[in-house]
Amino acid sequence: MPKNNLFLDALAGREVQRPPVWMMRQAGRFLPEFCALREKYDFFTRCRRPDLASEITLMPVKRFPIDAAILFSDILVVPQAMGMPFEIKESTGPFLKNPIASIEDIEKLQTPDVEQSLGYVFEAIDRTLTLLNDEIPLIGFSGSPWTILCYAVEGRGSKTFDKAKAFCFQHPDWAHLLLQKITDYTIAYLAKKIEHGVHAVQIFDSWGGLLSPKDYDEFSWKYIKQMVDSLSDKAPVIVFGKGCWFALETMSNSGASALGVDWTISPQKAREFTQGKITLQGNFDPAKLLAPPEKIYAEAQQMIREFGVQKYIVNLGHGILPNVPVENAETFVRAVVEFK
Amino acid sequence: MPKNNLFLDALAGREVQRPPVWMMRQAGRFLPEFCALREKYDFFTRCRRPDLASEITLMPVKRFPIDAAILFSDILVVPQAMGMPFEIKESTGPFLKNPIASIEDIEKLQTPDVEQSLGYVFEAIDRTLTLLNDEIPLIGFSGSPWTILCYAVEGRGSKTFDKAKAFCFQHPDWAHLLLQKITDYTIAYLAKKIEHGVHAVQIFDSWGGLLSPKDYDEFSWKYIKQMVDSLSDKAPVIVFGKGCWFALETMSNSGASALGVDWTISPQKAREFTQGKITLQGNFDPAKLLAPPEKIYAEAQQMIREFGVQKYIVNLGHGILPNVPVENAETFVRAVVEFK
Repeated sequence: MPKNNLFLDALAGREVQRPPVWMMRQAGRFLPEFCALREKYDFFTRCRRPDLASEITLMPVKRFPIDAAILFSDILVVPQAMGMPFEIKESTGPFLKNPIASIEDIEKLQTPDVEQSLGYVFEAIDRTLTLLNDEIPLIGFSGSPWTILCYAVEGRGSKTFDKAKAFCFQHPDWAHLLLQKITDYTIAYLAKKIEHGVHAVQIFDSWGGLLSPKDYDEFSWKYIKQMVDSLSDKAPVIVFGKGCWFALETMSNSGASALGVDWTISPQKAREFTQGKITLQGNFDPAKLLAPPEKIYAEAQQMIREFGVQKYIVNLGHGILPNVPVENAETFVRAVVEFK
Repeated sequence: MPKNNLFLDALAGREVQRPPVWMMRQAGRFLPEFCALREKYDFFTRCRRPDLASEITLMPVKRFPIDAAILFSDILVVPQAMGMPFEIKESTGPFLKNPIASIEDIEKLQTPDVEQSLGYVFEAIDRTLTLLNDEIPLIGFSGSPWTILCYAVEGRGSKTFDKAKAFCFQHPDWAHLLLQKITDYTIAYLAKKIEHGVHAVQIFDSWGGLLSPKDYDEFSWKYIKQMVDSLSDKAPVIVFGKGCWFALETMSNSGASALGVDWTISPQKAREFTQGKITLQGNFDPAKLLAPPEKIYAEAQQMIREFGVQKYIVNLGHGILPNVPVENAETFVRAVVEFK
């Protein structure tokens, strides 16, 4: 058990003196030491080399008094292991030359033993845990099956993922076959992360909010629910569905330990929709870290007052932006640590 | 008064036999006859030539039994008239070489007489009304002040408009000065459209949903509210805030005649948040027009059952996609016309 147990206490709903804090994408792009490393190694090399992944994971821990570390990695390592050779283009992001377009493409996908195909992730966990020396807990993560399908079918990032949605609406049976394959493999992946010692896992449903509530139930939540059901007795599971305010009530009735919320929902509404019964995580507007530090400090503390200290994990409402000054991120964390 | 008064009846909350239907962006990119015209004339030529703008406005009217026409134009004609020379790049969309970055930039903005600077729009209205021959009503539109600020400060489209948001968070006084200038000018613009005979106006707040509820109140709703207050005694005003589910209750207490909703809110929730007291417009997922026609037909009719026939205008939840087959759009409209 880590010496700083604030994060795990909040996940378990135990009483805390102040809420824990961490920042989505804290291990990365806004840190000068990360940018220096990026000059030398490309994206997936940074993910695949356990020495680099663990070094990057520790970067924000060394700078800020955060209450949890999150393993540096990417949601696309899972589809890569299944036989989708994703690249990251520095300008446009994820790219898959031959996106999934047919039932044959789906049938061809592999599900090799995770220890073999993704061993580098588990080795990075082992190394990171040694470096963390039981000071704070370590979070592991994956994408949601729907979010992975979005990239697999679209082949690249998109504002609206219309191609992925059209695929689901035109061939729901294919979509479900693909989603089930991704789900089963991701469950095996996260279970192995937990075996290797991560203290909690977070499922990122970055694109769930592009679906109507009905389609969300059919194409996203159905599979996240399977993941929660399979994993929640092994470690606390956090579900973060960006834009998924409409599903918070359903999510709060699952076995998840916490739900991430973005900044477009007020703390009051988030508590109302979840009937105050589950730990919430969020939801500072990432762009507000570009405001003057005194504004960041005041608004972060106001956010805590509105969510309440208990059953709450302070975080951003989405990943930290690359152009956030380090001082501003530090102010955000300090506002939480100094909260009375 | 147009012969087909269904749309204005729904806006006024009068009883109807079936809900009216139109589609956001119906005059444009998914129609082959529009694409043919696009080969010959660039974007703003199509907006600026009244003969072309009125011809394009009529295109969907000739194809589908829709209950309202919307004038072909663009929200950026307003900032253009104020001295921001926006271009449209076919690949990346709106582009402004020197985005607003200082108080001087804002002070330099002009507010020439709208009849002079935007006369081509009013001439397009005159021509279109003649062509429509009082068959169906004509809608005029503008962007919301916040949405125009997004483009003016960012200088181009964006997923998150962080630069625009940072501008507001760092210089709220500048932001408010800019927003007020845009508001006053847009009110004059829409008032003149109404004078020229449009039967209703719609305010598009495409990027309101990127703000937290508090920031939305400060930077977007405050100005939309001024527009509604100034215009609602002249013609019915529809407010469409994409992603602004969190503001529906506030909006429903304004003088707007109808509120547009996107597809991420269920009809039941939209009615609940607005307490059943205002006409709603929406909210078919535009990507669902890529589904097989029989699915489109069934889901469109199901949507009507869920919203209810009264106080309802059938529409998409955002603009029609360029790759929608004409047959599918026709099926959508037919599902409404044939609804019993």
